[in-house]
Amino acid sequence: MSIPPEIFVIDPRAGLPLQVQLRQQIIAGVLEGRFRPGERLPSSRVLAGHLGVARVTVNLAYAELVATNLLAARGREGTFIAEAVDHPPLAEAASGTPARFDWTRHLDGRHARAQRRDRAGDWRRFRFPFVYGQADPALVDHAAWRQCAVQALGRRDFAALTGDQYGADDPELVEYITRQILPRRGIRARGDEVLLTLGAQNGLWLAAEILLGRGGRCAIEDPCYPGLREILAQTGAEVCPVAVDAQGLPPDALPAGLGAVFTTASHQCPTNSTMPLDRRHALLDRAMQQGFAIIEDDYEFEMSFSGAASPALKAIDRAGAVVYIGSFSKSVFPGLRLGYMVADPAFIAEARALRAMVLRHPPGHVQRTLSYFLSLGHYDAQMNRMRRAYAERRAIMERALAAEGLSLVPGGASGGSSFWLELPEGIDSRDLAQGLRADDVLIEPGPPFFARPDQGARHFRLAYSSIEADLIPEGIRRIAAAIGRAG
Amino acid sequence: MSIPPEIFVIDPRAGLPLQVQLRQQIIAGVLEGRFRPGERLPSSRVLAGHLGVARVTVNLAYAELVATNLLAARGREGTFIAEAVDHPPLAEAASGTPARFDWTRHLDGRHARAQRRDRAGDWRRFRFPFVYGQADPALVDHAAWRQCAVQALGRRDFAALTGDQYGADDPELVEYITRQILPRRGIRARGDEVLLTLGAQNGLWLAAEILLGRGGRCAIEDPCYPGLREILAQTGAEVCPVAVDAQGLPPDALPAGLGAVFTTASHQCPTNSTMPLDRRHALLDRAMQQGFAIIEDDYEFEMSFSGAASPALKAIDRAGAVVYIGSFSKSVFPGLRLGYMVADPAFIAEARALRAMVLRHPPGHVQRTLSYFLSLGHYDAQMNRMRRAYAERRAIMERALAAEGLSLVPGGASGGSSFWLELPEGIDSRDLAQGLRADDVLIEPGPPFFARPDQGARHFRLAYSSIEADLIPEGIRRIAAAIGRAG
Repeated sequence: MSIPPEIFVIDPRAGLPLQVQLRQQIIAGVLEGRFRPGERLPSSRVLAGHLGVARVTVNLAYAELVATNLLAARGREGTFIAEAVDHPPLAEAASGTPARFDWTRHLDGRHARAQRRDRAGDWRRFRFPFVYGQADPALVDHAAWRQCAVQALGRRDFAALTGDQYGADDPELVEYITRQILPRRGIRARGDEVLLTLGAQNGLWLAAEILLGRGGRCAIEDPCYPGLREILAQTGAEVCPVAVDAQGLPPDALPAGLGAVFTTASHQCPTNSTMPLDRRHALLDRAMQQGFAIIEDDYEFEMSFSGAASPALKAIDRAGAVVYIGSFSKSVFPGLRLGYMVADPAFIAEARALRAMVLRHPPGHVQRTLSYFLSLGHYDAQMNRMRRAYAERRAIMERALAAEGLSLVPGGASGGSSFWLELPEGIDSRDLAQGLRADDVLIEPGPPFFARPDQGARHFRLAYSSIEADLIPEGIRRIAAAIGRAG
Repeated sequence: MSIPPEIFVIDPRAGLPLQVQLRQQIIAGVLEGRFRPGERLPSSRVLAGHLGVARVTVNLAYAELVATNLLAARGREGTFIAEAVDHPPLAEAASGTPARFDWTRHLDGRHARAQRRDRAGDWRRFRFPFVYGQADPALVDHAAWRQCAVQALGRRDFAALTGDQYGADDPELVEYITRQILPRRGIRARGDEVLLTLGAQNGLWLAAEILLGRGGRCAIEDPCYPGLREILAQTGAEVCPVAVDAQGLPPDALPAGLGAVFTTASHQCPTNSTMPLDRRHALLDRAMQQGFAIIEDDYEFEMSFSGAASPALKAIDRAGAVVYIGSFSKSVFPGLRLGYMVADPAFIAEARALRAMVLRHPPGHVQRTLSYFLSLGHYDAQMNRMRRAYAERRAIMERALAAEGLSLVPGGASGGSSFWLELPEGIDSRDLAQGLRADDVLIEPGPPFFARPDQGARHFRLAYSSIEADLIPEGIRRIAAAIGRAG
């Protein structure tokens, strides 16, 4: 690799000879690892031209550093960073370090502090990763996705995909979602009731910012998706956690004065319970009486194994009180970063304006590729393949859990991609998770899901979306053994 | 296309016979255009199974609608939406319309209201589109991009790209930006000083939200990029516009008590002036003395025609006070939605946490495709091609403007992709722009760029990034003629 001349900047005000400034910059580049052994410096002619200095100035700086073995001159080939820089001249580079700007005045760290730290970015390193929400590449039809991407990059589509669309979405993808995806959830929607998002996380953020960005009061399920609590903490809204039971969120337990209620009605996260129809109607009735909006995170509807999935809350929402949030992260793959929201046109118009301000729109090529993936039937095929694989893994999980005597929390639905478990008294799931890492096993401890983390100390989640079927029994055995040792 | 059974939902509480409910839903689907002539309904067996009702119920509903010619029965082929639905029975569908949720209580319209309305989404319809910031597909190396996308979808990359990366970026792309892109601007940065964004718009929003999301005071250039004013209006910060001159933002004119200053130092938007070196140092000195952060939007650095571009403000920022914002929208294409920010690691950590909360990360496949596009040399080739084309168009523009006697505002740099012009007294650029639409010409009137829009009444911008070279003279002739008619 060659080092480009543009990296060098001469400051006539610096009060240092130009030749010294240049030398300092080369030394700093080596010390900081930006210039690497064997890389070629610009020729003195090119660099002198770029800096507007005499060529002899550059030659002098180079010669000085060749003499100290930091650079190596190789005749007509040019000047290179030396292959072995043993003792770089630290002192020379360190001199002249200027004062630093004080960022502490500007950064209160509210975002970094709110960030979840319980997710293992290195989950692939573990042999038994019972982690939630990651894709199993073996289940993704890689060849079909690639074929769709190539098709979306054809000349016909390319011109349309390269432009800045301002607030608009790919009309083909929106059409497909309204006509083929939403009907499966019992949802009827027009194009102006749909907005594409950068995944469900982005949809939840947009909804929270619109409804609660200027304060207010909202209710969430307890336990719930930790990412939602993170989002709401930034809004300044008062957040009321409402304990779920085996039928999900109990509408009777909602406090008064709410502006918004967040629910995972069809598949409670993380307990996997399903809200029965009478509760759904009670929740919708209450929304109309008390005037709160409902945000439905329908995050895993594709993974229902027993016949048709129960329809979404949005499907029976005749009044239009529900903001529905869907995602392709589970059904295609999470790195895709595409989801959608469905709501009243007035709400969607506001969300569209906010999205355009924050990020404009999801990349055009990604939208069109997904559109082909859906319309050519690959999505359906992949769903069927995933459902079969998950159902098989779930059955293996159930047998292994029963064999090892591990207790499921009652009320979980027969679908999804995870189990919610309870530990014997006296064992903390955080300790269990930490200890299991040494056994090559990743599990998700309960506390991050709860408003008061200690309430989750005896719970943990086991997902089976990213672990191979034949590794499950051994993984469960290791978990049971660790519990045995701890109990 | 077949209508899926899942779209139909029966509500036992609705107090209406199941058969009537089903009929209403079919009618509503046709009326609302969701079911289209010729589409096939589910078989009565499948639909009855899905709804959990007797098959005769479905058959009765279908038969009723066949009798009114809304449906057509075609023997063993099934039941279809009739090809010609002349007088759909509106009354029946309209009965039973329930109360609507009152969204006015929840939506103050602050985002939709702040949205710019001056951008023509339909600019391709115009023969002479002097619009800014859109790609010219003829200059994009479509085949190379496609080849890189295919390479990024190879099996080796695919597994990594499908995962949820939480807050992380593609390390290959970050490496390339720090080692090959930033050095051209004189910027030296490590990986922890770089964050990928969904384009420069996203970078500006992240910076504004972090620095001003809880209020404060900031300065912007006047005139400036209207999208920035839109972003700042949502923060609740006090925004102080500071008039630019032929050398850009004058640091002496900045008010006291600022937390942040936004500047387009190298290429002022929209006047195209370049801030000279002494002003840059004065601005940086002032930032250190008064403690304000500088956000540098280096939005078009690739388009310098006369030798090397002046280095970025960030390049001489030894104290680390500058948050640098770059974009690939102009140099690759805007639909890509990829940019980056460079700043102190503490700032980047906070921006990374905020980005992860709002949208996680840009889609993995897009990141890796760009990484190949850069590392295989296509980016450089495309830059050279674009520079040549823009330089040629700029020369044609200059000749045409001079020939027609149109006045440039003094101080514009010899690069970029637009001119900033002044009209004779008494002509409003908004009227001019409106009138020119009928002549197939799009120009950008000045008012949206100004804090007080009327100050821009005599200005307008002419961009040449999306108009073919040989159409320029005729386009300019039409503009001059319209000015002549109006004057």
